[in-house]
Amino acid sequence: MTKRRRMRSAEKTLGTSPGTLTYIGDDIQHATRIKRIDYNAETYHIDDKSKLSQCQLPSQQTSLIHWVDVDGIHEPQVVAAIGQRYQLHPLLLEDVVNTDQKPKIDFYDQLTDTSPNPVAGSGPVVFVTLKMLHHHRDQPDVDIEHISLVLGRNFLVSFQEERTRDIFEPVIDRIKASSGKTRRSGPDYLLYALLDLIVDHYLVLTEHVGERMDKLEEMIVKERASQYTLTELYNLKRELAHMRRVINPTRDIIGALLREDSELVKATTQPYLRDLSDHINQTLETLDAYREAVSGLMDVYYSIVNNRMNSVMKTLTIVSAIFIPLTFIVGVYGMNFEFMPELKSPHGYFYTWGIMIAIAIGEIIYFKRRGWM
Amino acid sequence: MTKRRRMRSAEKTLGTSPGTLTYIGDDIQHATRIKRIDYNAETYHIDDKSKLSQCQLPSQQTSLIHWVDVDGIHEPQVVAAIGQRYQLHPLLLEDVVNTDQKPKIDFYDQLTDTSPNPVAGSGPVVFVTLKMLHHHRDQPDVDIEHISLVLGRNFLVSFQEERTRDIFEPVIDRIKASSGKTRRSGPDYLLYALLDLIVDHYLVLTEHVGERMDKLEEMIVKERASQYTLTELYNLKRELAHMRRVINPTRDIIGALLREDSELVKATTQPYLRDLSDHINQTLETLDAYREAVSGLMDVYYSIVNNRMNSVMKTLTIVSAIFIPLTFIVGVYGMNFEFMPELKSPHGYFYTWGIMIAIAIGEIIYFKRRGWM
Amino acid sequence: MTKRRRMRSAEKTLGTSPGTLTYIGDDIQHATRIKRIDYNAETYHIDDKSKLSQCQLPSQQTSLIHWVDVDGIHEPQVVAAIGQRYQLHPLLLEDVVNTDQKPKIDFYDQLTDTSPNPVAGSGPVVFVTLKMLHHHRDQPDVDIEHISLVLGRNFLVSFQEERTRDIFEPVIDRIKASSGKTRRSGPDYLLYALLDLIVDHYLVLTEHVGERMDKLEEMIVKERASQYTLTELYNLKRELAHMRRVINPTRDIIGALLREDSELVKATTQPYLRDLSDHINQTLETLDAYREAVSGLMDVYYSIVNNRMNSVMKTLTIVSAIFIPLTFIVGVYGMNFEFMPELKSPHGYFYTWGIMIAIAIGEIIYFKRRGWM
Amino acid sequence: MTKRRRMRSAEKTLGTSPGTLTYIGDDIQHATRIKRIDYNAETYHIDDKSKLSQCQLPSQQTSLIHWVDVDGIHEPQVVAAIGQRYQLHPLLLEDVVNTDQKPKIDFYDQLTDTSPNPVAGSGPVVFVTLKMLHHHRDQPDVDIEHISLVLGRNFLVSFQEERTRDIFEPVIDRIKASSGKTRRSGPDYLLYALLDLIVDHYLVLTEHVGERMDKLEEMIVKERASQYTLTELYNLKRELAHMRRVINPTRDIIGALLREDSELVKATTQPYLRDLSDHINQTLETLDAYREAVSGLMDVYYSIVNNRMNSVMKTLTIVSAIFIPLTFIVGVYGMNFEFMPELKSPHGYFYTWGIMIAIAIGEIIYFKRRGWM
Amino acid sequence: MTKRRRMRSAEKTLGTSPGTLTYIGDDIQHATRIKRIDYNAETYHIDDKSKLSQCQLPSQQTSLIHWVDVDGIHEPQVVAAIGQRYQLHPLLLEDVVNTDQKPKIDFYDQLTDTSPNPVAGSGPVVFVTLKMLHHHRDQPDVDIEHISLVLGRNFLVSFQEERTRDIFEPVIDRIKASSGKTRRSGPDYLLYALLDLIVDHYLVLTEHVGERMDKLEEMIVKERASQYTLTELYNLKRELAHMRRVINPTRDIIGALLREDSELVKATTQPYLRDLSDHINQTLETLDAYREAVSGLMDVYYSIVNNRMNSVMKTLTIVSAIFIPLTFIVGVYGMNFEFMPELKSPHGYFYTWGIMIAIAIGEIIYFKRRGWM
Repeated sequence: MTKRRRMRSAEKTLGTSPGTLTYIGDDIQHATRIKRIDYNAETYHIDDKSKLSQCQLPSQQTSLIHWVDVDGIHEPQVVAAIGQRYQLHPLLLEDVVNTDQKPKIDFYDQLTDTSPNPVAGSGPVVFVTLKMLHHHRDQPDVDIEHISLVLGRNFLVSFQEERTRDIFEPVIDRIKASSGKTRRSGPDYLLYALLDLIVDHYLVLTEHVGERMDKLEEMIVKERASQYTLTELYNLKRELAHMRRVINPTRDIIGALLREDSELVKATTQPYLRDLSDHINQTLETLDAYREAVSGLMDVYYSIVNNRMNSVMKTLTIVSAIFIPLTFIVGVYGMNFEFMPELKSPHGYFYTWGIMIAIAIGEIIYFKRRGWM
Repeated sequence: MTKRRRMRSAEKTLGTSPGTLTYIGDDIQHATRIKRIDYNAETYHIDDKSKLSQCQLPSQQTSLIHWVDVDGIHEPQVVAAIGQRYQLHPLLLEDVVNTDQKPKIDFYDQLTDTSPNPVAGSGPVVFVTLKMLHHHRDQPDVDIEHISLVLGRNFLVSFQEERTRDIFEPVIDRIKASSGKTRRSGPDYLLYALLDLIVDHYLVLTEHVGERMDKLEEMIVKERASQYTLTELYNLKRELAHMRRVINPTRDIIGALLREDSELVKATTQPYLRDLSDHINQTLETLDAYREAVSGLMDVYYSIVNNRMNSVMKTLTIVSAIFIPLTFIVGVYGMNFEFMPELKSPHGYFYTWGIMIAIAIGEIIYFKRRGWM
Repeated sequence: MTKRRRMRSAEKTLGTSPGTLTYIGDDIQHATRIKRIDYNAETYHIDDKSKLSQCQLPSQQTSLIHWVDVDGIHEPQVVAAIGQRYQLHPLLLEDVVNTDQKPKIDFYDQLTDTSPNPVAGSGPVVFVTLKMLHHHRDQPDVDIEHISLVLGRNFLVSFQEERTRDIFEPVIDRIKASSGKTRRSGPDYLLYALLDLIVDHYLVLTEHVGERMDKLEEMIVKERASQYTLTELYNLKRELAHMRRVINPTRDIIGALLREDSELVKATTQPYLRDLSDHINQTLETLDAYREAVSGLMDVYYSIVNNRMNSVMKTLTIVSAIFIPLTFIVGVYGMNFEFMPELKSPHGYFYTWGIMIAIAIGEIIYFKRRGWM
Repeated sequence: MTKRRRMRSAEKTLGTSPGTLTYIGDDIQHATRIKRIDYNAETYHIDDKSKLSQCQLPSQQTSLIHWVDVDGIHEPQVVAAIGQRYQLHPLLLEDVVNTDQKPKIDFYDQLTDTSPNPVAGSGPVVFVTLKMLHHHRDQPDVDIEHISLVLGRNFLVSFQEERTRDIFEPVIDRIKASSGKTRRSGPDYLLYALLDLIVDHYLVLTEHVGERMDKLEEMIVKERASQYTLTELYNLKRELAHMRRVINPTRDIIGALLREDSELVKATTQPYLRDLSDHINQTLETLDAYREAVSGLMDVYYSIVNNRMNSVMKTLTIVSAIFIPLTFIVGVYGMNFEFMPELKSPHGYFYTWGIMIAIAIGEIIYFKRRGWM
Repeated sequence: MTKRRRMRSAEKTLGTSPGTLTYIGDDIQHATRIKRIDYNAETYHIDDKSKLSQCQLPSQQTSLIHWVDVDGIHEPQVVAAIGQRYQLHPLLLEDVVNTDQKPKIDFYDQLTDTSPNPVAGSGPVVFVTLKMLHHHRDQPDVDIEHISLVLGRNFLVSFQEERTRDIFEPVIDRIKASSGKTRRSGPDYLLYALLDLIVDHYLVLTEHVGERMDKLEEMIVKERASQYTLTELYNLKRELAHMRRVINPTRDIIGALLREDSELVKATTQPYLRDLSDHINQTLETLDAYREAVSGLMDVYYSIVNNRMNSVMKTLTIVSAIFIPLTFIVGVYGMNFEFMPELKSPHGYFYTWGIMIAIAIGEIIYFKRRGWM
């Protein structure tokens, strides 16, 4: 997460016409994989390696819910073809392939744009784009995946960046497993289920951050912290800020789904969305609590460093203040003047020692009184 | 309170269907205890060890108010059974057992969800979940207890985590004691009474924090503070932030009860809720004032430390600046050159002393003028 | 003001029924004093030592305005009796005796609560509770007095904590003095006059804070500041924060009086309330300006201390850097090796001096160039 | 501007009746000067030394616009007389003479107050009070002048503090000069013209602050800054805060003029007021940008000071670390033990030099590697 | 961007009549260049060196869209002439030539102002003024260009400061290239296309800032940073703040275009404006993320400097604490007392070495234990 994914698109696309599909993510060799899932409470059919030609707007009569899960957005022509088959707005498709796009929701009422190949209206769609955050235990970095979901009257099209694993598998498994809530509900509940899955991953990631913070806290409290610990705290703070920037608009998306009176989201799905809204709010609150905690840890670290520094300076001062005057005294009697009466005295040496010890004790008492020792 | 209760649930529950009841709190051996209290202005009946089978939705005809106090949420099957008997939404029950759930209020209009075993509608309910904060005098930590309250037309179900003591005892005692306001009012006033009890505990806890702060302040002002004092201040600050995070949504809950025009909350209960809202606002203001005070104390501590450090450095500088040049002078006359005219002088030794004393006095005057001594 | 008045009530009143009157302020021996003032444009009657029995709701027919000024809230039974005579809500009375109550306003429409002894409705009342802040020239602390005002259709009841002086005397004097605006207007104008008096005292207190700040500023700018000055600044900052917390809700009270369309506040009183709102806004702005100024002064103080510290360190460095190498040189020729050619040289001593002076001058030039001298 | 004008009024006016006119500004000897200007598109008449008796509400029939420019508010009886002639509310007049009054706007619908001498209603008036800020090139301080403007149906009364120059002269000159926009429009445009003049002065003052800031920036960047520079930055910061406090409510005034649907402000004047609103917003943005820049400059200054301090400490450390061990070595061979084998060695002296040079070189290499030299 | 363009206008224009056109930018010698572009879906005509006389309001009957691109605003008389031909409000023209004008949008309903030469109404126009930000690779500074756009029913007038290159060329090229979306849409889409071009440049500039930040980050993390790096970070922070001040009001402009129900902006253009709003929001978020990152980098830099300083001080302390006491010891035996028993001892020298080595080792152990070495 610490590595910024530079917006390489800006200078390249300067002056091009809006609605142009330009993929700007990592280079990918695989072809786009398309899954087609049709289901209702009674039955389901899953086609793992669906062809583009098998995707099309379901007819209004069918009671089956039609889900097309597109795994890969690196082939603009494939995305464009799907867009045309499901009659999606060119600007919507632009957001699907733009991995720099921040999370957002759009409500398209009717296909009114004069795209090059205008088609008959598909009815209203809800478009959601957001980010999946994966943390792989053995890797330090967080993997950010650009996800887009298009909800229509009886269909849902999902787009994800190409990865080794399809992140929506748990939901597909639930559809396969039994005729549960997911099977018995409409595509809006499917949308909820996918969002829920993504939000759950945020919470998992938050836990990991919490664990790292606990380790750093232990190091700091046990005074085993170093400059490295501090740099780690700064990285943690930056990651928390980054996560906030990803999760915050996701909350707004769910808020908009709840607030907007879209005919596509049924009343029975509302309590689930409210619940999801709760989860994401809790994640955000936890992030904020962590951010405060990180700031607090930094302050504790600084105060410990400062405190140690003060000990160092006090040691220097005490040693110097005691021995520099004594060194002066022994220097006095190291002078080679021919006439120095003390040098002749038989007890001069011992008197000198006595004076020096008295000075040292006096200084020690003084320092103890001022609380420096 | 300083020990974060880690959300262990996130990774475990990843991908499970929503509405699944999973208890994530501490392990508990006792069975769930259920109290059943039926009362009105004339009479009351309390069954301390009620069985699950005795709990059920009261009929609409009865004038008795029905309160079921469930002490323990660690047995999901018990909570689920109660949920079914009182026809509560699955998501509501999920929040009852989820000890990580932040305080919130939900207004369920009608039981519309297609749960596995659908039942006849119980009418609207108000669901409140919040946190009880206990401070045990002999223990440093604060005990956080997850409380849920469900208000129906003529009943109230309360859930609390299993503890040695039932926190609602004072209210039960009031019901037993006499036919007072509590007995004469409806279940909405009972809800208010329970909320009032919880909010009063917040205030008690705030007092304890205030006392600890006073002790730290005394240590700092009397300049007896150490790094330990500072760490305590940081802990205090964190606790105040934590309390704020618990108490703030509780305020929103009471605000929603006042604002929402629910038929379940009668107009005569409104002034009491407004009063409660006042109390919680005052607690929050006190917390904020404490937070500011803690920040101020930290600054005072730092300025004292800094000031002491400056004294240390001044001492070092004065001692060094006086004796280092003098040591140089005595070093000069400690040289063994064969031809050094001063050494032969009979008064050279005393002249040297004179020069050194003059230098020392000059420096002392200079330092006094600059205000360093 | 720096001494926090601890909320001793919380633990004591835990679990008691709401509406219970518990006095939590300082112990007071005097009996409650009650003044009864009846007036209109033509006449007035003031009874300084009115008995409880003489207080009662004025009849609707009378054109006299009825003001009962209760001096002392430490006898709950007296407050309760007055509350009953003027048919005030139990929660209102609870706020009257609770000296920890933050400033607020409540609009009671009708006496609807089922208090133990229900009475006939007194019509709507406006309830205002706020704080009087006195500063006694010869004392460092600020005296906080808990004031409550109840405005009815043709009466006003005021409660104040027992003090040696009645704070409302100037208004009583105005009523006695002549048939001015106060006498010619209704009880709402009387409410305004009392609020105006309290707000004027805030301004006086703000002036005093300003004077103290000016003194501290002078000390800092003339570089005569010490740790004591800084502690004073912190105290000042805390007092300003405290004043803000007292005055801010007072502003909201006046705002509510202006905004709420209560029949008890006449249109002719509105411009006066707006004027009062202006005054309190200006006081708040002045407080904020002072707070900023205090922060600025702290920064200036720190920068001066830091600057002085730097001078100290530079002095140490210059003295050390010049004399430590020279001391090494004279140490070299203090060695007792049998074969040291320089010692035999007749001019060795003078050459050594020459070298040492050259080194010293070189260093001084270097330090001057770097701007350290 | 740095010299706070203390609110001397508060304690003095404590307990007086509201609506009492008390002048609290500087003592002034001159009599109040009154200018009377009557104009329309065709003609104009200016009476420079008008008498109080010549001022009166213009009749509704006249097409002339009537402007009374009152230069001086230090004679309460004059202000009161004008107030009576133009039938202004006592609270309005109180604000005219109160030089501590913060900028504000009031819309008086009708003269409804029962002042001692009630008069027939003058119709609605708009009352604006604000501050003129002058900067005299040869003086360090800013002159704050309290301005009040009263807009009626066909008249405008302006009040200003007594100064050597009438600040509204440019507008009077425009009226004299030609039959331009000012002459052809109503009194609302005149109000705009006067406000525009005042706002333009804010911008001029902002420029001056910008110039001072540029000078300080140059000193800091060229590392010629001292504690004095820092104190100047703090003064600048305070002045910017003060200007903000004066200008911000002025923006609200113009906003209220635009928003409130007063019959006194015509639609054709609206674009000009919007333009004025723009100007003041830009001034405020510039102030904010300056404030940020000042904070940035302070940080740069501190970082430079800190950096220099570090150089000082490094120098001290390097000199000490090199010479203190060497001084120890030469001290060893300055000891007077009878049996010290090295002293007898013919090359001991040179070996000692060799060891010392090696140590010095070793340390220099070490310091260079660590980047301290 | 770091060089503030001082508002030289304020003092110069003090007291002039509003609506006066005063150019305050850099001196420019070229004459104003005017391009005239007429186009619709079928055809287009571009006149690169159009004369003023060829510009005029298109008739309502024509289906051609009329775009006048004015390159240069330094000749007030030319701007005034165009303003008269297209019947633009004097205040609008004032904003066109005022290069200090902050970005804003104005909706002019009808030409109602009584300008010196009133003309027949041109219908409503939308006026947008904003800033173009160019970054030239070979120059450190950013070039700020003042742009104004006037959208009418079937025309658009664009004003830009005179530069070597016309910034709108890419759009002209798209009009020439093919009969695409731009050609097939109305002048509102043209307005969108021009705004899109400007917003794209903001993103390019943001990228450049990001690259500079990356370089600084690398220097800091590799501990090769100096005071120069810090000054660069401050400059970066200031630039980010400046860009925010330019881009933020641009967002408000697009928001107003979306929100205001102007008949000039067609429904089909709305999705494109929403998309543009998205882009600008993302740019602002990126700026904010950068600002946070810069602050974080500064903190890391300070902590590294502080850490290094602590190493320096520790080194000083260790060297001093070890050698100062040893130097004292050798000084003792350098004294010339006649009676010093140790000096006679044959092993005294070696015993002394032993003691000194023991002290040194003891101190090293002590320092290691405290973690200073």
